Amino acid sequence: MTVTSTGTVHHTPLDRLFRPTSIAVVGASTAVGKLGSAMLAAVRRAATDAPAVYAINPTGTAPGFLPSIRAASETHGRPIDLAVLCIPAGATPDALREAAECGVGGAVICSGGFAETGAEGTALQEEVAKISAATGIRVLGPNTSGFFRPGATTVSFVPTVRRIRPGPVAVVAASGGMNHALSFLLSEQGVGVGFGVGLGNCVDVTNIDVLEYLRADPAITAVALHIESVDDGAALLAAIRVVTAAKPVVAMVMGRGDVSAFAESHTGALATSWRTTRALLTESGAVVVDSEQQLVDALAVLSRTRLPAAPTPGIGVVTAQAGPGLMVLDNLLAHDIRVPALTEATRAELAKLLPPMTFQVNPVDTGRPGATFDKVLAATAADPDIDAVAVYALAEPDAIDLADAVRRSGIHRDLPVVLGIGGPADAVAPSVTAADHLGVPVLPGPTALATGIRALVQDARVRHLRAADDDGRITTHQAEVALPADEATAKELLGALGIATPPRRVCTDRAAAHCALAELPSPVAVKILDATVVHKTEIGGVHLNVRTTGDLDTALDALDAIGSPAYLIESMAAPGVDLILGVRRDPVFGPIAVAGLGGTAAEVIGDVAIRGHRLTHAGAAAMLDDLQCAPLLDGWRGGPVLDRDEFARIAVGLVTYLADHPEIGDIEINPLRLTPTGLIALDAVVVAAPDRQSPLEGEQP
Amino acid sequence: MTVTSTGTVHHTPLDRLFRPTSIAVVGASTAVGKLGSAMLAAVRRAATDAPAVYAINPTGTAPGFLPSIRAASETHGRPIDLAVLCIPAGATPDALREAAECGVGGAVICSGGFAETGAEGTALQEEVAKISAATGIRVLGPNTSGFFRPGATTVSFVPTVRRIRPGPVAVVAASGGMNHALSFLLSEQGVGVGFGVGLGNCVDVTNIDVLEYLRADPAITAVALHIESVDDGAALLAAIRVVTAAKPVVAMVMGRGDVSAFAESHTGALATSWRTTRALLTESGAVVVDSEQQLVDALAVLSRTRLPAAPTPGIGVVTAQAGPGLMVLDNLLAHDIRVPALTEATRAELAKLLPPMTFQVNPVDTGRPGATFDKVLAATAADPDIDAVAVYALAEPDAIDLADAVRRSGIHRDLPVVLGIGGPADAVAPSVTAADHLGVPVLPGPTALATGIRALVQDARVRHLRAADDDGRITTHQAEVALPADEATAKELLGALGIATPPRRVCTDRAAAHCALAELPSPVAVKILDATVVHKTEIGGVHLNVRTTGDLDTALDALDAIGSPAYLIESMAAPGVDLILGVRRDPVFGPIAVAGLGGTAAEVIGDVAIRGHRLTHAGAAAMLDDLQCAPLLDGWRGGPVLDRDEFARIAVGLVTYLADHPEIGDIEINPLRLTPTGLIALDAVVVAAPDRQSPLEGEQP
Repeated sequence: MTVTSTGTVHHTPLDRLFRPTSIAVVGASTAVGKLGSAMLAAVRRAATDAPAVYAINPTGTAPGFLPSIRAASETHGRPIDLAVLCIPAGATPDALREAAECGVGGAVICSGGFAETGAEGTALQEEVAKISAATGIRVLGPNTSGFFRPGATTVSFVPTVRRIRPGPVAVVAASGGMNHALSFLLSEQGVGVGFGVGLGNCVDVTNIDVLEYLRADPAITAVALHIESVDDGAALLAAIRVVTAAKPVVAMVMGRGDVSAFAESHTGALATSWRTTRALLTESGAVVVDSEQQLVDALAVLSRTRLPAAPTPGIGVVTAQAGPGLMVLDNLLAHDIRVPALTEATRAELAKLLPPMTFQVNPVDTGRPGATFDKVLAATAADPDIDAVAVYALAEPDAIDLADAVRRSGIHRDLPVVLGIGGPADAVAPSVTAADHLGVPVLPGPTALATGIRALVQDARVRHLRAADDDGRITTHQAEVALPADEATAKELLGALGIATPPRRVCTDRAAAHCALAELPSPVAVKILDATVVHKTEIGGVHLNVRTTGDLDTALDALDAIGSPAYLIESMAAPGVDLILGVRRDPVFGPIAVAGLGGTAAEVIGDVAIRGHRLTHAGAAAMLDDLQCAPLLDGWRGGPVLDRDEFARIAVGLVTYLADHPEIGDIEINPLRLTPTGLIALDAVVVAAPDRQSPLEGEQP
Repeated sequence: MTVTSTGTVHHTPLDRLFRPTSIAVVGASTAVGKLGSAMLAAVRRAATDAPAVYAINPTGTAPGFLPSIRAASETHGRPIDLAVLCIPAGATPDALREAAECGVGGAVICSGGFAETGAEGTALQEEVAKISAATGIRVLGPNTSGFFRPGATTVSFVPTVRRIRPGPVAVVAASGGMNHALSFLLSEQGVGVGFGVGLGNCVDVTNIDVLEYLRADPAITAVALHIESVDDGAALLAAIRVVTAAKPVVAMVMGRGDVSAFAESHTGALATSWRTTRALLTESGAVVVDSEQQLVDALAVLSRTRLPAAPTPGIGVVTAQAGPGLMVLDNLLAHDIRVPALTEATRAELAKLLPPMTFQVNPVDTGRPGATFDKVLAATAADPDIDAVAVYALAEPDAIDLADAVRRSGIHRDLPVVLGIGGPADAVAPSVTAADHLGVPVLPGPTALATGIRALVQDARVRHLRAADDDGRITTHQAEVALPADEATAKELLGALGIATPPRRVCTDRAAAHCALAELPSPVAVKILDATVVHKTEIGGVHLNVRTTGDLDTALDALDAIGSPAYLIESMAAPGVDLILGVRRDPVFGPIAVAGLGGTAAEVIGDVAIRGHRLTHAGAAAMLDDLQCAPLLDGWRGGPVLDRDEFARIAVGLVTYLADHPEIGDIEINPLRLTPTGLIALDAVVVAAPDRQSPLEGEQP
């Protein structure tokens, strides 16, 4: 720790925690099965960069054991880098204090019994957090099995960790269990792990710290991020933006089901909104996956190769067996990955290389692969519309060595190549080893191959979409709105933000209303105008298709009957496709934009697109294309086509406005109608931020 | 073959094809890399039940080679069971004819160049089909790499097949490539394969034949079914119903993306409707999965254990690490699998066995597993609401042997137990071997474990839902309808089928219409009544919310202007949730029922439930619960709750009626409104079957 003359505490660099040259195991033991025994054995087993290890136990249970951290520091002759605390929760604060006093750089707290268990544990955890904050000692945990750097230092009480295959991926998991589970899978499937950490209860070191730490680590080429809850959303997204500029992040988010009771018992934190977290992580640059297997497949590829930023990279698929090739194609197309038809020139070249009856459009089906396979790869890769190549073949040692064909073609030097090879492990292994030397990833089946390619494309696509981030933000709109806002006021704000609204009049008496009917394009909607009424239709405050003076009077009578303070007379828009676009404040991530199809169905089925307030124009233009209902926006049954630029301008303008106006809680346009002449806001609500609302408003449901 | 005195051709039993005691390899070769060489080596390598093998080549290229099938038969002294044809497409018909003449039981045609390549190949394929049909010789292919029975006979030119681990799963794949790809995955992941076949172009032997053949094979406990296209839908569904009564079928269906061009080049068949095929396979009893990995995970479980038929089995989750346990729980809950809270009694028992701060509600988090782990398993399994137990732990050889804990608990004898074990292969292997002896499946990670459990539940659930199948079908409705049908006629049919419709009058003049307005509950809808008009609203043929005589006259004027031959005056229903329910004739599967939320969104996003005409009451009652929009049916925001029995009665009635009335093409109720007083059909269309339509109608778009 460093306490400056002004009393500011500087955090110790994480290298002392994660690359210690000296380690004290507090609570060390020689009893088989004890944590302190397993941990001591693990840290002593360091493969390289072996740190000095001290076993600490106040009762000195074995020869060479020392009674305290202080005694270890004295023996070591200078401050020890890392203290690993294998002691009960209750003894932890004292041990941590002693460590900090002795200048220890970091501590791993393995024990549970903190915030995840109730009030007493929460108090202990707060005490630990205070010690860390006050002294600068970095703390991993509590409630973690530690971390490891396969091939170098292991600080984990799980003995099998030493068999994890070293490699280029870092695992950053919410818990020790998931760190181990993911690392073992990455190891067993040949991807390899360079660093793995389980964060536990995060009194100090969070995934944000670790992401920033890993950004500069040249041994790590990709990061696996496992998330159970998010504390500081903005900081996490910023960290992901920064890290993914340098190396890919593949993320998995818990909380799709309602797991809150168990989750809270696990780390003491509430699960965050699954949908929002996934959407914003994706927008920030992470490749979000649904399972460990997808995580492994994505990292097998992204730890070895990466596409340049691009909106829709073209994939060439070359397959030696049609069935698996069809499966790859089906998966890619179902996920909107572009598998373009090869040019005539490419097909002419392929026709010279392959038997006449094989499919050569893309996929390229080689039939049983032969001596021309490398030339087929080269021809496909040379096609101007191909940005990466996926290759599938069963291992047939007599027929072809797939990795050798890639090497001979040389295409892996020009663009990403991903192999899928089926077969028994011993038949596949030589190709895997050879491909590894070329930096070419190998996956075990068609779906795995497609998952890897999708990750490659997703990683390239999101970097393209957020490129505008660096061009600076859109100018803050100076428009102001008086709160509480009625519909007319809300629409004035939209108008100031450049959003189209229907021609309308605010009328305070019948004469004005009749004048409006006469002058506005017919038919009109006649609506209650009252900032305190949120659900106008439900109370009979909206009358549509009013064309005649008789109809108008009937409508005005009805509004008078419910005490409408004024009337809003508004021309009705042409029919079209009704969307919802809202901007609101997420408790974890701050201002977000939410868009989807109008009506309740989109909300119920979760077919909504969510983005953060750093939304770029390109990101907003593409956001609705992720939706299941996207076909409705492109001239479905002769209907209108969405102008993506117009939508992007509206969405970015709204979310930027919200971010710049803390007095606003949310703005919702519902519906935002897609018409043949463009988007038009038919109704809008502007709500004050909760802490700006009057008590009366705050009590409204 | 057997040709009876009446000339009927009896198909040879498939055992002669799939369990041959003698094999002739036609086109045998000694040249390395040739198909005929690889195939000859493969069939000679049979591990057990070694068949007599004859190498056939007219040029007698090697010692012991024979010039013809006839010569081989003579040498063998009796008809040869199987001829494997490794010869070009053009030479195939003659060879097949010779084989049939010599009494050969079955033939595998490896060569491509048939229907998948164009007119010439199609003619060859038809010739092959004719020979098979005329002589009874069973034909596998053309365009297949064959089949294998690991541990016994291999008829595949892929040499690595001999390393496939024998096991209880049969693979039935559309193509040789997928047979091999899936079999290798099942082998590598320890599930094991007992039989694998790639069907190719299916001139004779189809997946239906193989499913029926496998049903009686005691060595096969589960089937993997890979489908690219369906020819005879009804027969396939019937086969799946029969097989799944005996053993589980896990299916994967291609065609989610638009892969038709490549698919046709592959097997000469068009891809079927992905969504319909999946839905009907599921209804018939198959567990439909999305990837090879899910297939492997599902079969790892279902090949070893099965739940009794049940609607919503309760799953107990026991985990030694909270993070992976949370992941299992999240996956199960997100897929509506029931993970019930354990009873107070169970929790009291667990409290005696576990440290106080662990979560014991379900999941049961044991913390680092200790000596009581078997008792924890026993207590969880004994809970009255638990039907199967999922257990996750990292392999910690020092801490626990998971399989041994299961053995000591004995719970695997009472209910299905599925293990998830993370860790390096050599640390996990002893547990896998021990679990295998107990018949307990082991999966490698949390998602795999959840996938296996979901398959177990799905398999039990569908058997429960279709149990009513055996109770006989619902009585055919005698109601008849005159075609073409206008809305009133269509609603009379619905009424006869017991489906509620609004009070209405058919009026041929204005006086009758005014009388109807006066007598029907207000407001009313005034609609055009014309059987030739399908889209009434689009031409201004529907006027809603008519309450006054003035409004009525306006509406009638409008209908007269568009030449309405009569008026339909109908009371409007209460507001509610609008559904669509249609029954139609699928070109592959025959009568199907399709239901979803009203409006275009459900259709566009594919959130529709599809069932076949053997729909049971229980199946129909549950069908909407699969939909993403299902929450809208259960009192969403104070709205009405769907009576599942009422919906089931309507859906089964409609689809049964369609099945019994070939003159009807389809019946669509749109909307079928869910109101507080029940379901009511607000509009309905009955369309004649295409071949029953008049030419004029047939031309309508």
